[in-house]
Amino acid sequence: MEQNNEWLIGKNALKEGIAAGKRIQKVYLSDTLDNETLKELLKLIRAQKISVLVVPKSKLDRLNRSNHQGVLASISPIQFYKTMDLVTHIYEQGQHPALALLDGITDVHNFGAIARSAEIFGLGGIIIGNKNSAPVNYEAIKSSAGALLQIPVCKENNLLHTIKELKAQGFVVIGADEKAEQTIEQLDMTEPCVMVFGSEGEGISYDIKNTLDQHVKIPQIGKINSLNVSVSAGIFFYEWMKQNNQKK
Amino acid sequence: MEQNNEWLIGKNALKEGIAAGKRIQKVYLSDTLDNETLKELLKLIRAQKISVLVVPKSKLDRLNRSNHQGVLASISPIQFYKTMDLVTHIYEQGQHPALALLDGITDVHNFGAIARSAEIFGLGGIIIGNKNSAPVNYEAIKSSAGALLQIPVCKENNLLHTIKELKAQGFVVIGADEKAEQTIEQLDMTEPCVMVFGSEGEGISYDIKNTLDQHVKIPQIGKINSLNVSVSAGIFFYEWMKQNNQKK
Repeated sequence: MEQNNEWLIGKNALKEGIAAGKRIQKVYLSDTLDNETLKELLKLIRAQKISVLVVPKSKLDRLNRSNHQGVLASISPIQFYKTMDLVTHIYEQGQHPALALLDGITDVHNFGAIARSAEIFGLGGIIIGNKNSAPVNYEAIKSSAGALLQIPVCKENNLLHTIKELKAQGFVVIGADEKAEQTIEQLDMTEPCVMVFGSEGEGISYDIKNTLDQHVKIPQIGKINSLNVSVSAGIFFYEWMKQNNQKK
Repeated sequence: MEQNNEWLIGKNALKEGIAAGKRIQKVYLSDTLDNETLKELLKLIRAQKISVLVVPKSKLDRLNRSNHQGVLASISPIQFYKTMDLVTHIYEQGQHPALALLDGITDVHNFGAIARSAEIFGLGGIIIGNKNSAPVNYEAIKSSAGALLQIPVCKENNLLHTIKELKAQGFVVIGADEKAEQTIEQLDMTEPCVMVFGSEGEGISYDIKNTLDQHVKIPQIGKINSLNVSVSAGIFFYEWMKQNNQKK
């Protein structure tokens, strides 16, 4: 799955990559590394708040066939933003900020399709978590038809904290929830807003659900209980664009 | 990809399956079969207008590991409708017919997502071609969240012919076309209609494009040139539902 990634291969490449400020997405360390090396690298990695996994050597062999000596780090093909920097930037450009926050969407194809829709309908950016998200690799970029190279993506360690910061900035937090009373057409989306989408299996996670200002559903007729999450997000973004274009 | 299929395995199973009217999707014959058997089976299969491929034995081995003796036939998990029978049935129920026609959409996940949206927004059915379509197998059903077990699917040998029959029945043929002048909001979808979606790479095929009564686009702001086809279809179905619910 991650074979399309660029990699830092081996202990020295990782250390140099960290020192050079490379966009490291995730580090894989083999559990066959000696204790001292493992401790040294974990300390270095965690100091940078980089996501790290200690796994059997066979996992690393599957990810990359080179002589990795137990150390692999995937490099992100895009530069991530910090949400608050992005918000400031959007306001400075005199634009109307609307963001999409993806809570646990791990499927690369859904993620790519959502990025395409967000770019096409003019959203300001996409926020994902550091954990439990689709990898932002070349497969995702391909699946997004290049949208991930156009629209800002923010990667946050703590989505709950990011939502609280956005609320403090006056953002309305809107959750896509098929059990909601209110339909999307009834919702005023002309204020700065962040639209939250959960995974298909789990929905929006409990803590984040508690922060929502609005629960909104897409009206439906049929028997099946939910749309594909990328279709659902596409309709939300489309309605947002319609409301904000009518305003102009 | 097709490992989730049910199979008829071996020459006798195929012959019995055909005699019993089983829902055979596609037959794979090994090119190692003797000439006489090949001729006999091809005659039998073609008489039923069943799709058939003569391929290297290794292809069959990949599809199914059993002792297939050079003959494999995949069984469809759903019953296909004939479009004109379905149209009659919809009219008899006093419903407003709207159908989706998928022209060359081979990706199972897109197909599944489109089926979900079609069922949820109340379309009458989905039309696919016998060739150049996603296989309607258990993977597709899973990807559709079961929608393919709820919404009628019509499989046609000649999509162009089907469109002409629908036009003769008064259907408006609407094509999703990002280069169109007219936007979906400007379109009256309260007449019986069939919405046509092409593959992401190729778009709607040339012959079918010539039959369209309406070329319609989804309005957009961004730089990327097209939405994922399942998102695009979802927005079309959503707009159709909105127009036809307002009417009630």
